[in-house]
Amino acid sequence: MVLSVLRLSHRISRDKRITTHLALTARAFGASEFFYTGDKDSNLENSSKYVSEEWGGEFTIFFVENPTNFIKEWKRKEGGMIVHLTMYGIELSDKLDFFRGNLSNDILIVVGGSKVPGYIFQISDYNIAIGHQPHSEVAALAVFLDNVTNSKERKQKYTNAKTEIIPSEKGKKTMNLQDGSN
Amino acid sequence: MVLSVLRLSHRISRDKRITTHLALTARAFGASEFFYTGDKDSNLENSSKYVSEEWGGEFTIFFVENPTNFIKEWKRKEGGMIVHLTMYGIELSDKLDFFRGNLSNDILIVVGGSKVPGYIFQISDYNIAIGHQPHSEVAALAVFLDNVTNSKERKQKYTNAKTEIIPSEKGKKTMNLQDGSN
Repeated sequence: MVLSVLRLSHRISRDKRITTHLALTARAFGASEFFYTGDKDSNLENSSKYVSEEWGGEFTIFFVENPTNFIKEWKRKEGGMIVHLTMYGIELSDKLDFFRGNLSNDILIVVGGSKVPGYIFQISDYNIAIGHQPHSEVAALAVFLDNVTNSKERKQKYTNAKTEIIPSEKGKKTMNLQDGSN
Repeated sequence: MVLSVLRLSHRISRDKRITTHLALTARAFGASEFFYTGDKDSNLENSSKYVSEEWGGEFTIFFVENPTNFIKEWKRKEGGMIVHLTMYGIELSDKLDFFRGNLSNDILIVVGGSKVPGYIFQISDYNIAIGHQPHSEVAALAVFLDNVTNSKERKQKYTNAKTEIIPSEKGKKTMNLQDGSN
């Protein structure tokens, strides 16, 4: 199962931290690709690359010029499936058993920006809500990914990491994986 | 079980949207109080109040002048327990069974700002990680609350709501609960 995330309508002025949190959340909960539309943002791309260099794993971030074409292409792919996270959709718990058995494809998880165009609701295979209250696309993405991966991905070991955390009851402990120092 | 959230070191210039997302996430996943320290922010407070007026429920937001005193007072309360969410802590899955059986108290969930002072790690009853990778305090809070409440809170009905969503396979449907219109 390959999990990818598409963030719509990134605006540098307003969204820089939210979109950074989305990218980090995508990576930490098992997605391998992060696409975004809206404003191209080299700071966003660089901070995401820096995290992967330091903490390891294969995770790439891409700017998408034309979301409509991109989404249509995704649908045409063999096994391409689109899940749009929206508070207006069907509650995740009503689809979770289905998802756990059927997500062996190439899943694109779409998370909205300010105004999501109507065609996203139409073209998506599933419009899924994480509760029906207003909250956060970061929260929605985390809970969705954590559920469909059965919390396994957030506990994975990342390849080629320079730094790793040593879990601790109190305080902060890390290990430098290049020289073994703490 | 009463769930409360404390957000440390809010900075208006940098954190306004992240802290708003934290407050909305706290509310949508079952917390009833949201405390924050750092910069007092009337926009943050007003947007949170607006959401509760529109979407219902009992949820209050408070500015805390002195986090050290506040946390010490919390510890002195009958049943006051502090859970600090940090990537350096013990993975949630290693404590979840314990938490589900023992969270009948007054839980304060602390989420960090930029630099969390060492005493927070010491004074907290539990330092809990949602995975050991860098991601987002919004993601951490959502996954923590959703797990300890067994996903029930995100599906609750809110009292005194003006608007409610009618879950939909495609598109957006809401109901105005005051006059029954869509």
